[in-house]
Amino acid sequence: MDSLFLRRNYGWLVCGLPGITTKFLHKMKTKIGIVGASGYAGVEIVKLIARHPNVELGCVTSRSLAGTPVAEAMPSLTHLLPEGFKFEQSTPESVAAMQDISVWFLALPHGAAAEYARALIAAGKKVIDLSADFRLHSLDIYKEYYKEDHKAPELLKLGKYVIAELFPVSGEDKLIACAGCYPTSILLPLIPLMREGAVGLEHIVIDSYSGVSGAGKKSDLAYAYSERNESAKAYGLPKHRHNSEIEEELSIAAGRTVVVQFNPHLAPMTRGISTTITIPAKYDGVDKIYDIWQKYYGGRPFVKILKSGRFPDTLHVCGTNRCDMSAVYDPRTKNLVICSVIDNIVKGASGQAVQIMNLMLGFDETAGLL
Amino acid sequence: MDSLFLRRNYGWLVCGLPGITTKFLHKMKTKIGIVGASGYAGVEIVKLIARHPNVELGCVTSRSLAGTPVAEAMPSLTHLLPEGFKFEQSTPESVAAMQDISVWFLALPHGAAAEYARALIAAGKKVIDLSADFRLHSLDIYKEYYKEDHKAPELLKLGKYVIAELFPVSGEDKLIACAGCYPTSILLPLIPLMREGAVGLEHIVIDSYSGVSGAGKKSDLAYAYSERNESAKAYGLPKHRHNSEIEEELSIAAGRTVVVQFNPHLAPMTRGISTTITIPAKYDGVDKIYDIWQKYYGGRPFVKILKSGRFPDTLHVCGTNRCDMSAVYDPRTKNLVICSVIDNIVKGASGQAVQIMNLMLGFDETAGLL
Amino acid sequence: MDSLFLRRNYGWLVCGLPGITTKFLHKMKTKIGIVGASGYAGVEIVKLIARHPNVELGCVTSRSLAGTPVAEAMPSLTHLLPEGFKFEQSTPESVAAMQDISVWFLALPHGAAAEYARALIAAGKKVIDLSADFRLHSLDIYKEYYKEDHKAPELLKLGKYVIAELFPVSGEDKLIACAGCYPTSILLPLIPLMREGAVGLEHIVIDSYSGVSGAGKKSDLAYAYSERNESAKAYGLPKHRHNSEIEEELSIAAGRTVVVQFNPHLAPMTRGISTTITIPAKYDGVDKIYDIWQKYYGGRPFVKILKSGRFPDTLHVCGTNRCDMSAVYDPRTKNLVICSVIDNIVKGASGQAVQIMNLMLGFDETAGLL
Amino acid sequence: MDSLFLRRNYGWLVCGLPGITTKFLHKMKTKIGIVGASGYAGVEIVKLIARHPNVELGCVTSRSLAGTPVAEAMPSLTHLLPEGFKFEQSTPESVAAMQDISVWFLALPHGAAAEYARALIAAGKKVIDLSADFRLHSLDIYKEYYKEDHKAPELLKLGKYVIAELFPVSGEDKLIACAGCYPTSILLPLIPLMREGAVGLEHIVIDSYSGVSGAGKKSDLAYAYSERNESAKAYGLPKHRHNSEIEEELSIAAGRTVVVQFNPHLAPMTRGISTTITIPAKYDGVDKIYDIWQKYYGGRPFVKILKSGRFPDTLHVCGTNRCDMSAVYDPRTKNLVICSVIDNIVKGASGQAVQIMNLMLGFDETAGLL
Repeated sequence: MDSLFLRRNYGWLVCGLPGITTKFLHKMKTKIGIVGASGYAGVEIVKLIARHPNVELGCVTSRSLAGTPVAEAMPSLTHLLPEGFKFEQSTPESVAAMQDISVWFLALPHGAAAEYARALIAAGKKVIDLSADFRLHSLDIYKEYYKEDHKAPELLKLGKYVIAELFPVSGEDKLIACAGCYPTSILLPLIPLMREGAVGLEHIVIDSYSGVSGAGKKSDLAYAYSERNESAKAYGLPKHRHNSEIEEELSIAAGRTVVVQFNPHLAPMTRGISTTITIPAKYDGVDKIYDIWQKYYGGRPFVKILKSGRFPDTLHVCGTNRCDMSAVYDPRTKNLVICSVIDNIVKGASGQAVQIMNLMLGFDETAGLL
Repeated sequence: MDSLFLRRNYGWLVCGLPGITTKFLHKMKTKIGIVGASGYAGVEIVKLIARHPNVELGCVTSRSLAGTPVAEAMPSLTHLLPEGFKFEQSTPESVAAMQDISVWFLALPHGAAAEYARALIAAGKKVIDLSADFRLHSLDIYKEYYKEDHKAPELLKLGKYVIAELFPVSGEDKLIACAGCYPTSILLPLIPLMREGAVGLEHIVIDSYSGVSGAGKKSDLAYAYSERNESAKAYGLPKHRHNSEIEEELSIAAGRTVVVQFNPHLAPMTRGISTTITIPAKYDGVDKIYDIWQKYYGGRPFVKILKSGRFPDTLHVCGTNRCDMSAVYDPRTKNLVICSVIDNIVKGASGQAVQIMNLMLGFDETAGLL
Repeated sequence: MDSLFLRRNYGWLVCGLPGITTKFLHKMKTKIGIVGASGYAGVEIVKLIARHPNVELGCVTSRSLAGTPVAEAMPSLTHLLPEGFKFEQSTPESVAAMQDISVWFLALPHGAAAEYARALIAAGKKVIDLSADFRLHSLDIYKEYYKEDHKAPELLKLGKYVIAELFPVSGEDKLIACAGCYPTSILLPLIPLMREGAVGLEHIVIDSYSGVSGAGKKSDLAYAYSERNESAKAYGLPKHRHNSEIEEELSIAAGRTVVVQFNPHLAPMTRGISTTITIPAKYDGVDKIYDIWQKYYGGRPFVKILKSGRFPDTLHVCGTNRCDMSAVYDPRTKNLVICSVIDNIVKGASGQAVQIMNLMLGFDETAGLL
Repeated sequence: MDSLFLRRNYGWLVCGLPGITTKFLHKMKTKIGIVGASGYAGVEIVKLIARHPNVELGCVTSRSLAGTPVAEAMPSLTHLLPEGFKFEQSTPESVAAMQDISVWFLALPHGAAAEYARALIAAGKKVIDLSADFRLHSLDIYKEYYKEDHKAPELLKLGKYVIAELFPVSGEDKLIACAGCYPTSILLPLIPLMREGAVGLEHIVIDSYSGVSGAGKKSDLAYAYSERNESAKAYGLPKHRHNSEIEEELSIAAGRTVVVQFNPHLAPMTRGISTTITIPAKYDGVDKIYDIWQKYYGGRPFVKILKSGRFPDTLHVCGTNRCDMSAVYDPRTKNLVICSVIDNIVKGASGQAVQIMNLMLGFDETAGLL
């Protein structure tokens, strides 16, 4: 372990309080495992955990990079990782067997995630899953949207759908399904309003534009630079997979079935989701809306509510774990128009996963995320 | 006049039919004037007219570029223009006095356009106006949206709002208001459906993302590269100026007042508008919709109807005068979702203006535009 | 053949001179074949030929698109092509057997191009090849740079390396090798200076930045949007394949061996090459340089020489067949710094190929290219 | 001071060691002032200091934003700043009078920086200046390149030009001139080689491409999105202002006058500089070069040396304080080609300034920068 690594990880304390031994501090850190660390979301979790003040990387797996030093693939982590720390090959069994790692992030395709989750849960580990495997409450809807049988149906009950600001997380939780990227940008503004009965429940239209990284790290001509640059377009209509979790969660929040028109698009940028929601208003003006948002998010560090008439911008949240939102009331149409933006890879995936880990392990919600 | 210019402009005919004198051919070309030729739309009209087989540039004005050779500012026109052809200074009176130019394009801010139109109309010229000055049928709505009194109210009746595929244009027309960029992308798919009573008229939601050139050629930090790159965001809500013409025209098409939620946004690209319209369906499926579109646009060169399930892409219409569109029916919501794309500077401004000129002067609709 | 197609292709003449039958005109057009029409360069040639006033598309082949209507893949050509005109499957023999097509463009990978060229030349056709197969004068250098034996070594002599402004092209030419994209941007400014002995021949450094389309239409993670956006980087150093033709041609121009440092890079844009050449000056100032350029390019439509102190911009040549260039003299270093820009797909590939065809068939050099 | 702010700033220690009072910790932090905090570099320093573990923001000034809460302009800092912390108006005298702030960053235009520096130095403060005012050793060269007399010539001797890895910094330093962005990318690879006499000193050519943020936060049409998108071009040739410091420092390193050809360009990206240096080699191969780099940078956290044949990418250093570099030897030309990349705003400006502060105040070099 090189001295820069030591200084870096423990130096802040050491520098203030030289008497405390690094050994003692070392024991304080929880070891974290990450399965599937080479995709855009996986890379981002590795970076967040490597910089996190309270936890440390125990194991990082990647089929394609197994054997490669992590710092080679992610040079900005060079001085944050023990020398020689490598990507590992893994199976559900091999990760479940790692004694000293108690919390695992799964950044895997759906299906594969379920199999790892089963082995890890059986071994008493905590799992924070970024895939869709445990987001839905119904096996039928899972099959309808994902076109295959669920790989670990017995765990569906245990799984808990979470957006960090809206669903309580505690040390008791064992299997958490992080919300998808589009749903995070949609549910953060809408769930409070639906829980409070403050908006209409019919004729809801949601248009979202996502950066291209949302499609994943793929060798696919459709995502080639020369095909996506200067290109804005819809896709996946009329029934994108994320519809399923959006409607399930809105229905729970509203206490009745809610159906929405969700229109996803690609925009020529790497990161960011810009979501615009048109929803029939129940009140003239936005005061009531802002009151409710204030009640839910007033103290929360990762939701920023902009004044009505100012509009959130993906660029301003890029690289942050924040969701910015605002609303206007249109007296001509009696609609609310709500705009929200997130970084699809951070708040829409890895940042939120780490925020959930913070809540789960009793750390400050912002630890490693500001 | 250099020989390359001569060959270029008349050579294709000459080469096939050497006996015809260039003098004779020269007489066949209508001279065109363009006022305000230095903005993005103005530049594009100059290019289109310079390349047009049936007309030629007579006068190009620009306050900021007066005295500069046009070919210096637009080098790709070097061999299409007479040597020494320059941007000119102008007033409404000076352009109206130019005897040999009978058709004028106005690429001016609203307000200024009305003053030029008044002088030109009084002098018996034909005017194709790209500003908003003659788009609206009501002075009150003009004042409501543009925050000033109309500068030539007596001409409002004479002015004719045109999208080339939807409004007949003839040699009788004197003052034509080209539709705005957003409205073109919206009205092309919607007006036929409303005229035929094929869609619901309530709860219409329109989300559009425009390239940054839509904001014009401006020294404004808000449109600086580093501010707009990687940025997607809404703006101008809830009452963008284009609302006025969208709703006026939809109401005429539907035969009753239509109010829509129009949500404009900026996307990080130079050109293109991607519009997605959610509208309650009257029929299951899209067959009726496609039949109507086929009826209106079947023979028209600049509307391309994509199969349901394929989605138009701004990149594919970039630099063309085309509007691509498609529709899906969502059985869960009973909505139609209609997607359309245009190049905001071509079909959304200059290309459409030239298309209108073609129709007005009896040329092939596609002349100079394919 | 639909009437719009007829009107479009022959209408300009017909409209001016209604008595001339389309049949007669039809006979005037040379039929053109294009092999490998689905890559970025291939698509561009198809567009240029479809719009060309003097020739018409006879056959367009593509392995991946065989059977698809060309207008489906390139909708902007819909009204320029006969209805139902499709991409075809091909072999060297099958294209060579097409009686009515006398000129073929090859937009194929090197190696494959040589095999088509052999069959076409044997059948008495003219070939304009965009690959590297006939660019080099030495089989050894071909093997050194392309790592394989030449597939049609007997044709090397017949092949003629061409940049349209620098090498005479005539109806006698049978097999033309269009210069590569980087070399076009480099040789256009340099060859005249070397032929005239106006610059030093040692310590020449050439840095070029290319848009991503230069890498071709590939499903390769290295060219994915999220990997290339916001990325500038060198690649292929120290011996990019284009070195071979750059040095061969400079050596011929200078009359002695010239070796250059050529440093290629990728920039985050779809199109364009920006080349900057540092070369020891022989004269104080740039007057002599500009005189020579003027002598070579003064009457040429596709080279624009900017005043010293103004710098060419890839954006300004994007979509054009132009090369813009300028030079400054640095009295501190006694170097000339020459900057040039082209659109890599147009002047760097397809536009130049069509320009060469124009010269070969005796048309105006600019036909179909302004 | 809200509790989240307290927890955030002191919580990591507090959480591990609850007995230590925040009051005690508070005293440990050095207060930092930043003048000119609204430009791209200024904003970045504010962010770095707000997140820094060992220092805290004392005062942030901006003429244009005076009176605005900092967290409003930079929402990601909301929970890192005391509530109500605002941008302030300032004069050289007013900042010099602030008793509790001992270290100031100047992110001002040249000329203005000198005036603040004079007042601050007179008041016994430490100054880290990001402008060009104290980068040069000669008043004549300053005037030659910056076209005006130096505003504080008496301080030139006190000022110390620093690139953190190459010039020792200590608590004794009073006035530090941070290297410019281009020079940082150029001098980091070159100075060690020149100090060791390992490269030729003639015929050095440096081509750099910078992201548009390098031009600053300006309302200038030249930097508008639609003008810079898809645009690569040279500018400022043949004598960019940064030439002066590049040549001064190389000459010092080499022990004799060194003149270089420095060719700056703009690339269509927000951040990043990609520099490619062609320099005559003294040795066959790169071993000696890599040995020297290893000697200078082996233990340094912010220089990453890539294997010969791999090329650094601006995207990989974006948002980091790192310079990545590699070199190839070209046996044909006997040149070394050295490529380096930095984030122009971080390592090229604000990150390096904070790194220098760390060294000056005795903190770990990486504090707040990993």
